Amino acid sequence: MSHQLTCPYGSKGSQPPGSLVHVGTAHTAVPEITLICFGPEHHAIRKGISLEEAAKPDTRAEVVWLDITGLHDVSLLKEAGERFSIFPLTLEDILNTHQRPKAEFFEQYVFCVLKVAEPHPSGRGLVMHQLSLILQPGRVISFQEKPNKILHPLIHRIETAAGRIREFGADYLFHAILDIVVDQYFLCLELLGEEIEGLESRALDRPDQALVPELQKMKRELLFLRKALWPLREAVNALLRDGHPLIKRDTDAYFRDLYDHTVQIIDTVELFRDMASGLLDVYLSSINNRMSEVMKILAIISTIFIPMSFIAGIYGMNFRHMPELDVPWAYPLVLLLCLCIAGGMLVFFRRRHWL
Amino acid sequence: MSHQLTCPYGSKGSQPPGSLVHVGTAHTAVPEITLICFGPEHHAIRKGISLEEAAKPDTRAEVVWLDITGLHDVSLLKEAGERFSIFPLTLEDILNTHQRPKAEFFEQYVFCVLKVAEPHPSGRGLVMHQLSLILQPGRVISFQEKPNKILHPLIHRIETAAGRIREFGADYLFHAILDIVVDQYFLCLELLGEEIEGLESRALDRPDQALVPELQKMKRELLFLRKALWPLREAVNALLRDGHPLIKRDTDAYFRDLYDHTVQIIDTVELFRDMASGLLDVYLSSINNRMSEVMKILAIISTIFIPMSFIAGIYGMNFRHMPELDVPWAYPLVLLLCLCIAGGMLVFFRRRHWL
Amino acid sequence: MSHQLTCPYGSKGSQPPGSLVHVGTAHTAVPEITLICFGPEHHAIRKGISLEEAAKPDTRAEVVWLDITGLHDVSLLKEAGERFSIFPLTLEDILNTHQRPKAEFFEQYVFCVLKVAEPHPSGRGLVMHQLSLILQPGRVISFQEKPNKILHPLIHRIETAAGRIREFGADYLFHAILDIVVDQYFLCLELLGEEIEGLESRALDRPDQALVPELQKMKRELLFLRKALWPLREAVNALLRDGHPLIKRDTDAYFRDLYDHTVQIIDTVELFRDMASGLLDVYLSSINNRMSEVMKILAIISTIFIPMSFIAGIYGMNFRHMPELDVPWAYPLVLLLCLCIAGGMLVFFRRRHWL
Amino acid sequence: MSHQLTCPYGSKGSQPPGSLVHVGTAHTAVPEITLICFGPEHHAIRKGISLEEAAKPDTRAEVVWLDITGLHDVSLLKEAGERFSIFPLTLEDILNTHQRPKAEFFEQYVFCVLKVAEPHPSGRGLVMHQLSLILQPGRVISFQEKPNKILHPLIHRIETAAGRIREFGADYLFHAILDIVVDQYFLCLELLGEEIEGLESRALDRPDQALVPELQKMKRELLFLRKALWPLREAVNALLRDGHPLIKRDTDAYFRDLYDHTVQIIDTVELFRDMASGLLDVYLSSINNRMSEVMKILAIISTIFIPMSFIAGIYGMNFRHMPELDVPWAYPLVLLLCLCIAGGMLVFFRRRHWL
Amino acid sequence: MSHQLTCPYGSKGSQPPGSLVHVGTAHTAVPEITLICFGPEHHAIRKGISLEEAAKPDTRAEVVWLDITGLHDVSLLKEAGERFSIFPLTLEDILNTHQRPKAEFFEQYVFCVLKVAEPHPSGRGLVMHQLSLILQPGRVISFQEKPNKILHPLIHRIETAAGRIREFGADYLFHAILDIVVDQYFLCLELLGEEIEGLESRALDRPDQALVPELQKMKRELLFLRKALWPLREAVNALLRDGHPLIKRDTDAYFRDLYDHTVQIIDTVELFRDMASGLLDVYLSSINNRMSEVMKILAIISTIFIPMSFIAGIYGMNFRHMPELDVPWAYPLVLLLCLCIAGGMLVFFRRRHWL
Repeated sequence: MSHQLTCPYGSKGSQPPGSLVHVGTAHTAVPEITLICFGPEHHAIRKGISLEEAAKPDTRAEVVWLDITGLHDVSLLKEAGERFSIFPLTLEDILNTHQRPKAEFFEQYVFCVLKVAEPHPSGRGLVMHQLSLILQPGRVISFQEKPNKILHPLIHRIETAAGRIREFGADYLFHAILDIVVDQYFLCLELLGEEIEGLESRALDRPDQALVPELQKMKRELLFLRKALWPLREAVNALLRDGHPLIKRDTDAYFRDLYDHTVQIIDTVELFRDMASGLLDVYLSSINNRMSEVMKILAIISTIFIPMSFIAGIYGMNFRHMPELDVPWAYPLVLLLCLCIAGGMLVFFRRRHWL
Repeated sequence: MSHQLTCPYGSKGSQPPGSLVHVGTAHTAVPEITLICFGPEHHAIRKGISLEEAAKPDTRAEVVWLDITGLHDVSLLKEAGERFSIFPLTLEDILNTHQRPKAEFFEQYVFCVLKVAEPHPSGRGLVMHQLSLILQPGRVISFQEKPNKILHPLIHRIETAAGRIREFGADYLFHAILDIVVDQYFLCLELLGEEIEGLESRALDRPDQALVPELQKMKRELLFLRKALWPLREAVNALLRDGHPLIKRDTDAYFRDLYDHTVQIIDTVELFRDMASGLLDVYLSSINNRMSEVMKILAIISTIFIPMSFIAGIYGMNFRHMPELDVPWAYPLVLLLCLCIAGGMLVFFRRRHWL
Repeated sequence: MSHQLTCPYGSKGSQPPGSLVHVGTAHTAVPEITLICFGPEHHAIRKGISLEEAAKPDTRAEVVWLDITGLHDVSLLKEAGERFSIFPLTLEDILNTHQRPKAEFFEQYVFCVLKVAEPHPSGRGLVMHQLSLILQPGRVISFQEKPNKILHPLIHRIETAAGRIREFGADYLFHAILDIVVDQYFLCLELLGEEIEGLESRALDRPDQALVPELQKMKRELLFLRKALWPLREAVNALLRDGHPLIKRDTDAYFRDLYDHTVQIIDTVELFRDMASGLLDVYLSSINNRMSEVMKILAIISTIFIPMSFIAGIYGMNFRHMPELDVPWAYPLVLLLCLCIAGGMLVFFRRRHWL
Repeated sequence: MSHQLTCPYGSKGSQPPGSLVHVGTAHTAVPEITLICFGPEHHAIRKGISLEEAAKPDTRAEVVWLDITGLHDVSLLKEAGERFSIFPLTLEDILNTHQRPKAEFFEQYVFCVLKVAEPHPSGRGLVMHQLSLILQPGRVISFQEKPNKILHPLIHRIETAAGRIREFGADYLFHAILDIVVDQYFLCLELLGEEIEGLESRALDRPDQALVPELQKMKRELLFLRKALWPLREAVNALLRDGHPLIKRDTDAYFRDLYDHTVQIIDTVELFRDMASGLLDVYLSSINNRMSEVMKILAIISTIFIPMSFIAGIYGMNFRHMPELDVPWAYPLVLLLCLCIAGGMLVFFRRRHWL
Repeated sequence: MSHQLTCPYGSKGSQPPGSLVHVGTAHTAVPEITLICFGPEHHAIRKGISLEEAAKPDTRAEVVWLDITGLHDVSLLKEAGERFSIFPLTLEDILNTHQRPKAEFFEQYVFCVLKVAEPHPSGRGLVMHQLSLILQPGRVISFQEKPNKILHPLIHRIETAAGRIREFGADYLFHAILDIVVDQYFLCLELLGEEIEGLESRALDRPDQALVPELQKMKRELLFLRKALWPLREAVNALLRDGHPLIKRDTDAYFRDLYDHTVQIIDTVELFRDMASGLLDVYLSSINNRMSEVMKILAIISTIFIPMSFIAGIYGMNFRHMPELDVPWAYPLVLLLCLCIAGGMLVFFRRRHWL
């Protein structure tokens, strides 16, 4: 996720607005176009076709879903813009993969940009990429930054006619894609929750400095999640509140449900942030506690032996006139004195609850 | 409460919305259905019946309360959905025991999801489970995640006709259930308040590292409480503000009262959070203070004896030409010098208020 | 104030709403009823009467103020409720002495719950109790938790006809009581301000651990004040904004004034909280600074004497072949070397600004 | 500014609202009344006159500005109230020099209370006093707590007819006074900004405990500024938004300008607060860093010499049978061993980057 | 950027509002006036002309862009104000280079003040200067504080007729200038993002005190950016929301786009602030961790050797009657004892995980 810190925005330089430049990394060699047509009674999936084929009207299909994966081929996007009458500013937003999530309403279509979160293949942290959706009458066009599997279950549901997806129209498909993206966040949060718990138990039991960069990474990921989620919530709210003739009233309950889920995810992210920001304090208190323990041992040993060493030093002096040196019981008496000092110190420390 | 951190949300995976999957832990072997029918003059309680019996209209009863405890039997929920015309999305919300508290208004019923908090059997911390309520004309249906006793006092009031419960309609019963849930929070807060006071006095008097995980646990519980309470407040406010034909205007004063209580609970939770978040600082200041005390003792002992040891070391050297060694009063003079050094140091430390 | 932490809310247990239970501590042996009747030309004060007498209409009086002090006699409250037509839910709020401040409008009366703050008799900290007010046509009823003197000046003003109190109606009396309660907060803030200044100078000059619990206490009192004041502000705002036929438009300017004062008090409480929350940091910085000073002294003494002691140790060895031992100037040379080491160290420390 | 902490509010005790009591310190022996009359073509300034003279109508003057400096003479204020028909509650606000800034609209006049900030004569910190303004048709009355020079430039502008002041009416004069007060804040912020920069460089370079009380003072002054500015902004906004027949639409642009300035000042105060609150952390990090340096030196010296001292101690023992003592090269070998230990330690420390 | 702290506001002293005084530093010797006229088919750029020439109407040009760089020549500004009918208050805002960003609507023109951010020539930190824009029918006037290159790409686009700039009117030019300024912020954020990452890795790996002032500088720059951006967002929102006859509805989509970008920049600045404010904690934890390591080494060495030194001291005493001294195996036994002590200590430390 680190590449997003140094460049979490589209620096097109001094290009005029509406000019099409791909901002981001090219993830696939060739953009892949998939066309999924379906109705209550039938469905057809065609992969790797050209835009020309994709634009041909399919009289049988009630809903057409066109998925374009890979955004670095600007000319393809331009062609798509012309074939499906998408405005240049919308195309620019699609190409700029650092776009803030949002929903926009045009007379001819509804446009929505999202961030999709996936667990990082390494098992730690998240990867995010951008998904843009356009809802037109009877058609949904999705633009993905790079190939991924999160929409596969949806395709599977279309193939097997599971749930209501085949019976409803394009607006339900539009909702279903949003829903699957939001569900994906739950999965990611589960992962992060486990990581936070791991970090907490480490901060308490085995505080080492390696924890700090991990904590920083965790906090940053939560910040990025938050940055993606708040505008997502606004976008879903806009879809719910402002409405659009393309979104039928029947689908409203589903969008309300979606909004609830988004709010719940944000709640959890805020909860995680609260927890993560407390962890550094826990770590510091562990370090401090350990230091104070080290100090105690040092102090105990020093304060016990330093006075005794002084006594030994006294009788190690070479003065000619030291009457004690000739007293036969002096040596055992001095040893006894040392013992008494040590004992007294130990009692003192115990009283102060240092031992 | 820890299981909620790793999974505080419903990860149904890629199920289509509205598909019924139980998300959570199965708490009872068999879901238990209880039917309570009552009117001003009579009441009847039947436990362990089937849904079919429960759905039979009871002509005498003015209010019917159907309680279903245990949510893991999805087919039962489906049957309940059909018999009492509950929408699939509502059923999904009931089954997902990680649902955010909310109130929803439908033409045929009012739906409300709540979190119920109970002191943990161990006496420390809280347990939460979910309670869903449906208010239909003359009927309240409650869905509980697992068997518990918090609604028993209400049943007792129905049996003994205490208060106004038997005289009012289903909307008052609906309110009474909400009210008992909210009252339960007061009880839990009392418990948490005592725990916080205990933690505070420990942080001040006996700061040990074991305090930190307990503080973390406390903070987390307050975070979870907060996460449950803010939407609860919104839900109660929605019931109060938007109204519904099923909730008569007479009950409004009761809902306003309920809203006041919710706000008061939230105030207290925020107060507790403020107090808890200050406790780590108190603990750290205790640790720091103790460390500084240890340091002082170490410094005092070291600085008193180290110079004296040096003097003893000087006269322990074996040089042939050390004229002092032969002076008869040298030894007592050196001892006196040591005493003076020690005394001077003590005066110095006292002046600096170290002693 | 500590009893409020463990129970800052009404835990009536499972009582039905509207059931009258006194929540709080019984402060007086017998509730005291005081009746004050007055008009522009006359006034009459009768103490220790019964509710029956109090309810008798006084044809001469234009304004009747009935004060009931002591809330633990539930039957008395019930009687008052019946005689003065107060709703059960209002009575319940009066009895629950952990009620959140609020103002409620009914057709027949205006109801207002307040917290009254008084300096603790010990001179440190505050005591709070609850005051409930009911404004009816020509009558104000006040319910106090325990006997106190804060309303005495008002009675004195009625007796001496000072200000405009005797000329205006019940709504002005209602305002005057609120005003005296708010003025009382100013007094308490003055006290707290002095305490904070004392704590601050202690944190800077004589940081000892005893400061921390006092700081905690101060913060908690400010939290409680805040908890009482924010809803008070809402309540006064409601009185000002929503209006009620019982509150004449002439009194509006007074309520606006009252609102201004409430806002000013809240500003000051927030200011005090900002200051108090900075004090722990000041204390910690003092402790840290002191520790660093102790460390420096320890380090200076140790680093000066440890090398010198080593040199003395060298020449204390008993090797047979140590040519230096026989050199006549060796002893003074060694002493000189020690002096040089000590001097060099001191120069080094001065350069590092440790001395 | 310290007197404001202990009493930042008007504690009139139990006076009835609207009763005139001066709250604050009496700054001048005798209140001074200045009358400034002007029109496009003429102006007249009369100092030290009586209220009676001041109230005489000046037929030539188009705008009359009456300035009363010194508020402790309550009878004077009362007289002013009667002569210029000012309501008792307004007079009370004028007298209470701890009033929160605000603007109030009455049918006959516009009333505005402000805090004026001045750099403290000592050059450090700020002094604040109160300025109350009343705008009546053709007349502005200003009440100042104590004599000061901030309005002098305005008088100078009237005398020299600089700018548009003589051409416009009383509402422009009213605005000009507000404007000069707001400009004064810019000056004070400049001063505070320089102080903060000084504190910051001290925290970094010469961290000593004396910094902490200065930081506290700075934070407190910013808190007080903030407390004065937020309501000032509200007041200016009220003047701008609600309007009043006495403020002509032409002056609106000037009030908008004034509002912009107020917002800018608040922005800067918030910026300064952010910076000041970071300074204690900087100071603590400096202290910590210095302590860690001291610790390192102590550790290095100790760990180098303690093992060597032990070796010297070994050969200082008086056992009869210590074969090494008779070996001729033993002494130089032991010295070499000590050198090796010291060298090894130094290498170890360098590797750990302690040196 | 430091000059902005001590004077981030316009201290015109006691000048009347609307009086023209240049507040800021004079950056160029002579203000430079550039006139750019263009239409769909032609364009003309004239540099270094006089205002008189600039004001001559060009019948062919559809859009006229007049750029005045250098604001210290007040008389020039006055002349511009007269020739292009700009109100004095607007001119004052243009001259005051510490103006808060804002948009103002007048009947005759739209006025907008912005802060332009540029990377500092040294490569670290940012430089800000002010840009004021006036949109009149068919004409845009820009006032720049000092010469810079950020508008050059726009001039280039006009020259080469790239994008739609030549086809649209003055409102699109107005938008294009705003857009280029906002894009510039993205560039600056990229720079700051890299700096923050550098600081973070230094805080973790090589914590030295030099980091703290750099962190402070970073935080201050983010604070200044924030101070410039929030009002910029408001200004863009005002342009979008309130509209003005001079801004055609066609350009709305562009302004919405601009608003989105501003929000995204603010999001990123807030994210950076969150990250920067966590870095001091990271630094402190590193310092603490290092200190605790130093302490451990010191404690280990001390506690191992101090007891052994004491034993050596014992047998260095000169008592006549010390029977051990004559035992032949005593010396090796004592050495063995020392070894055992050292070994035991090492085991103890390993068990405590100090080694």
